[in-house]
Amino acid sequence: MNKQNTVEYIKSFPDKSLHSSIIDNHNSIETWFRRQWIKYPPPFYSSIDIRNSGFKIAPVDTNLFPAGFNNLNKDFEFLYISAIQHALERISEKISKILIIPENHTRNKFYLKSLNTLVELIKKSGYEVCVGRIGDKESFIQDEKKFIRKNDYLIFGNYNPDIIILNNDLSDGVPTILNSIKQPILPDKNMGWSNRSKTIHFDYYSDIVNSFSRILDIDAWLLEPQFRNCGEIDFQTKQGEDCLLYNANKLFNLIQKKYDEYSINEKPYIMIKADSGTYGIGIMRIDNIESLKNLNRKQRIKMSKTKGGNKLDRVILQEGIYSYEQLKPSDHVAEPVIYSFGSNLVGGFYRLHNMKDNSENLNAPGMIFHPIPFENACLSPNPDEPIYSETNKFYIYGVIARLAILAAAKEIYNLGD
Amino acid sequence: MNKQNTVEYIKSFPDKSLHSSIIDNHNSIETWFRRQWIKYPPPFYSSIDIRNSGFKIAPVDTNLFPAGFNNLNKDFEFLYISAIQHALERISEKISKILIIPENHTRNKFYLKSLNTLVELIKKSGYEVCVGRIGDKESFIQDEKKFIRKNDYLIFGNYNPDIIILNNDLSDGVPTILNSIKQPILPDKNMGWSNRSKTIHFDYYSDIVNSFSRILDIDAWLLEPQFRNCGEIDFQTKQGEDCLLYNANKLFNLIQKKYDEYSINEKPYIMIKADSGTYGIGIMRIDNIESLKNLNRKQRIKMSKTKGGNKLDRVILQEGIYSYEQLKPSDHVAEPVIYSFGSNLVGGFYRLHNMKDNSENLNAPGMIFHPIPFENACLSPNPDEPIYSETNKFYIYGVIARLAILAAAKEIYNLGD
Repeated sequence: MNKQNTVEYIKSFPDKSLHSSIIDNHNSIETWFRRQWIKYPPPFYSSIDIRNSGFKIAPVDTNLFPAGFNNLNKDFEFLYISAIQHALERISEKISKILIIPENHTRNKFYLKSLNTLVELIKKSGYEVCVGRIGDKESFIQDEKKFIRKNDYLIFGNYNPDIIILNNDLSDGVPTILNSIKQPILPDKNMGWSNRSKTIHFDYYSDIVNSFSRILDIDAWLLEPQFRNCGEIDFQTKQGEDCLLYNANKLFNLIQKKYDEYSINEKPYIMIKADSGTYGIGIMRIDNIESLKNLNRKQRIKMSKTKGGNKLDRVILQEGIYSYEQLKPSDHVAEPVIYSFGSNLVGGFYRLHNMKDNSENLNAPGMIFHPIPFENACLSPNPDEPIYSETNKFYIYGVIARLAILAAAKEIYNLGD
Repeated sequence: MNKQNTVEYIKSFPDKSLHSSIIDNHNSIETWFRRQWIKYPPPFYSSIDIRNSGFKIAPVDTNLFPAGFNNLNKDFEFLYISAIQHALERISEKISKILIIPENHTRNKFYLKSLNTLVELIKKSGYEVCVGRIGDKESFIQDEKKFIRKNDYLIFGNYNPDIIILNNDLSDGVPTILNSIKQPILPDKNMGWSNRSKTIHFDYYSDIVNSFSRILDIDAWLLEPQFRNCGEIDFQTKQGEDCLLYNANKLFNLIQKKYDEYSINEKPYIMIKADSGTYGIGIMRIDNIESLKNLNRKQRIKMSKTKGGNKLDRVILQEGIYSYEQLKPSDHVAEPVIYSFGSNLVGGFYRLHNMKDNSENLNAPGMIFHPIPFENACLSPNPDEPIYSETNKFYIYGVIARLAILAAAKEIYNLGD
């Protein structure tokens, strides 16, 4: 991490209407968000992957079980503490003991660093914290401590938590021991990847951006990746590929139409992603229909499994969004990741990759990324600075991130339906 | 402001029980405060003057119309924004337009700097802000704009605020135009100095500290200034001085008894302060009964008026607390001032004075003080650091400040009685 490195736009964008409409409408935007959170309580925490091509800025992934806390700017620790306190107070002022259920891959040292940072931040916020891993095969045994249920309360050893925070995306399903327990689970256990789908998330996101863009009087496309989805698919048996080709073709045409409308001289591309899953597994980029028609064996194997070895049988086709931010002087592509506790933004960092070009997914397995923590908390624009200044850019990222958080909040709200 | 200056304790205190009990009980303390704020909503903002003699740490003044925002550490701006957002959201998520009623002495450039900082911070928090001064003689005219009332709403020009924030301590009484208006007024208009008294505040404080010190199993005296009060007094006609002498004598004895109990080799002193008032006006230090018996004409004139030329007719006698913090290398006495929005601490600064010794009031009229902004937000201790470390000391200040804020919250809560 080198403070002399800076992340810069590598293209100039003559049309500033997207950026200026967000900066100019700061007060209306904040008022609008405050009203949304009344009805749709935000998830406990999240990290939002954003891509900025200059002509459009949009979220491409909304993670409700974030890791990477160790990569945040240490100078903002007070803000994290304040945000955690407020997110927890919003749930109940009576919470004092917290149990965190982490991912099982506890030998991943990057993950452990993140988990430790999260635990320390919650402790510094004035709460008691215990980490209890739900082991493989639901053995529930760790450090001689056992998970037990008593009168529908989940107890770890003799630790009886007031709430349970999931830092495990439940790709393998909801452990039975979490069913109908009385303590609140944050986020809702049905928001794990065994239940959630990207299609539903981006459906909500699209609705939200449609309303939001009316406030700003701008084209909603500037803030969202277009997407299509298919029914069941099997990349190995080719079942469902007709539908995939049909929708990919449609999506390429939709993107090209928009590029033409805005005189954007770029080549459309599409990301095909597992509809339920994360960790950069089950994800593929295609530049044209021909390459999708001619997938090789390696690609087909890659697209048949998601995290934890679960079968990939649904995908989302998402408009690819170029990243025109680069770390200078190295030219590495930079992708912003924004963090929040509740609706409280706490900044984020740039994910960097020196092996990828500006259209590839940077959350690739085994990637080595060099995070550049934001020098800014994304909370507020500065209208006295140029429209593309760091402060204003980060505020825009914060707005986009909150639109994605609101989509997740609506997912949670509608779980009860 | 010189970053090389540091504020240091100038005495060493072998008994660490006060400090260590606060640091060790971090979680219980935070849990306790969270529960208090449910029942007693904190005032919108406050600044708390604290004195630290090492053997005891206590608030000596609780200001509900704080100025000095310009002296806060600029590096923590994101924390101020976050705290303002949460304090306002706690009142209502539907607020968007705010009217600030400032002090009338708009030619004081220090005050104007503070007011501008406050306005900018609230704007950056995503609210519309307008400043409307209620002029002398209630003319209500400013910049061609008039205060009007329409259906019991207070309107300034054509600006119809959702809430009104007072940054005016109402020493001259509550302006009639503020009576029974429908918008919330923060803090409550009956918390101005025309209604409030230090005696009632420190009565509540004393009750709170009694409960709080039971959690820590320490002597409540370590956290509070003892005090006495009298009935009506007139320093010019000497009416009520018998009572004053009687209580001063009692208070000297009480302090001496405590000093003996803790083997403190210091000379007790007493501050006599206007019971309703601020700004360092109507305040006097006495070191012994004889000097109180023999007040000279100048002292008597000084003790006959409070801010705005109002008659001083009630006083509080408060235990003097030595300040054993000094700016190094200059030896100037330093007095911490802690700021908050709602119950959210945002740090503070040291008030310094090179003309005063370690027992005098530093908030003297016309003083030139050199604020040293805290490098810390007072939010969290660090048990891995020494008990007297900056981080731990500031956390203790934050706890004491919140006890005083809670006393003010109880004052507000009981206004309805």
